[in-house]
Amino acid sequence: MKYSAFAKSWFLDPTKPGFDNYPTLLDDDRKVPKLEASLEDIGEYQRRLWANQKQGLLLVIHGPDTSGKDSLIRTLATYADPGGFHAWSFSRPNSVEGAHDFLWRVTPYLPAYGQMVAFNRSHHEAVIGERVWPVRDVETYDWEARYRAIREFEHHLASEGTCVMKVWLNMSKDEHKRRLLKRLDKPRKRWKFDPSDIEGWKKREVYQAYAEEALAATHTEENPWYMIPGDRKPQARAIIAALVAAKLKTLAPEYPKESPEVLAEYRELLAKNGVS
Amino acid sequence: MKYSAFAKSWFLDPTKPGFDNYPTLLDDDRKVPKLEASLEDIGEYQRRLWANQKQGLLLVIHGPDTSGKDSLIRTLATYADPGGFHAWSFSRPNSVEGAHDFLWRVTPYLPAYGQMVAFNRSHHEAVIGERVWPVRDVETYDWEARYRAIREFEHHLASEGTCVMKVWLNMSKDEHKRRLLKRLDKPRKRWKFDPSDIEGWKKREVYQAYAEEALAATHTEENPWYMIPGDRKPQARAIIAALVAAKLKTLAPEYPKESPEVLAEYRELLAKNGVS
Repeated sequence: MKYSAFAKSWFLDPTKPGFDNYPTLLDDDRKVPKLEASLEDIGEYQRRLWANQKQGLLLVIHGPDTSGKDSLIRTLATYADPGGFHAWSFSRPNSVEGAHDFLWRVTPYLPAYGQMVAFNRSHHEAVIGERVWPVRDVETYDWEARYRAIREFEHHLASEGTCVMKVWLNMSKDEHKRRLLKRLDKPRKRWKFDPSDIEGWKKREVYQAYAEEALAATHTEENPWYMIPGDRKPQARAIIAALVAAKLKTLAPEYPKESPEVLAEYRELLAKNGVS
Repeated sequence: MKYSAFAKSWFLDPTKPGFDNYPTLLDDDRKVPKLEASLEDIGEYQRRLWANQKQGLLLVIHGPDTSGKDSLIRTLATYADPGGFHAWSFSRPNSVEGAHDFLWRVTPYLPAYGQMVAFNRSHHEAVIGERVWPVRDVETYDWEARYRAIREFEHHLASEGTCVMKVWLNMSKDEHKRRLLKRLDKPRKRWKFDPSDIEGWKKREVYQAYAEEALAATHTEENPWYMIPGDRKPQARAIIAALVAAKLKTLAPEYPKESPEVLAEYRELLAKNGVS
């Protein structure tokens, strides 16, 4: 798996896991790629990916409540073919999911070859959210074992042809506050407000600390975490769209090609049946 | 389930099952609603449907090969939220699917409450395609029993809150011919050409005759078939988008509302935790 210099410039540095080391806002919009061009590229190259059916792309999106995960996915999907693009959310495991190992519930939703799939939260919640709000009544978890399981799971996916891109939306405390209030003010957003948002806010520091540890432990050169400034949604979307577009171009540069001989044979068969 | 006069004007008339009774092209574009407005409505009302999570919408799309089912779904999805909108294709049943009753394979893909789902072909292939190309090695099927099973299945869905809209793209033989050739000419479309398209073309008359019978037998006032002129893609898309938009408006006219008391309580809780 090769990454461009642009992609690498957004990698998490696992030797500097603290999110304070990463910007929540870029002051210079000149560093931000143009959104529309990236979305058009996503539309085109996702269709090629789907036509070729050789590789899959799994986009894992994490960040605090209100960090814009849903609207990011909506934006990325603008020109995507819904036949080959699906989005799934993973909140707290339900009772059936919690009765299985933590990778079980995401497995049926992994991309098929040719598909691009976005996870709004993912199996990584098992080493972040579940650490704040335990799902099972066990004495203690072996977090190192879970980190290792995630690394091996994602390495397995990459080896078998599914690229894994992991994104953290790095949002400041002030912006988090502002968006919680905004959620209550706007009829279009109000329904998304849930008392659990208040619990999330109360546990912001501890959640963030677990996330810092988990991201550093599950970042690999092959399946990296991208640290994206999250305080201005259009900025975050434009950066992530550019990263996704660049990755799709490497996975599916061309539509599948038929040899001229096969095409001639098809034409002949059609002509024989009155189509010419 | 109530349908507007506009919706009803596109209903199949089961007393006139022959597709020749329905236009493949409208000569007057003034009868065609504006696409963009309908797509924006779909975007807005599908988000309300998803926010309310009370009803589902299943859109079943059928028509000959090359009739534009994929591109229709792409168009309808333009402003849809991919969290609540999914598209699935059903071609010939594979060996596991064929080893089950014919409704089994579609069941896991039905819309959850709040979701809108498009089926590119569906369980109706069991009374159309499977009649041309049998899946199981049985003496004979009881087609009337299958029609009844489909009617009862869809009635069950409607009773439980999932609206079923069924669309037939009515394409002329000449247009079918033209598109088969076009598929071979364009690199962007060529990969979709498959020798099975030629088989489909050869069996066009018999496939169409089975479809005429099946549609008439599974059309109900509750879960109607819409007969849409399919020879010009933009026309077909605009009509279907208007039908879907109108249906969504009846299913989810508003975002869910919280009482002022609950909102005040949320604000108080946030303020207590430093968010104000």
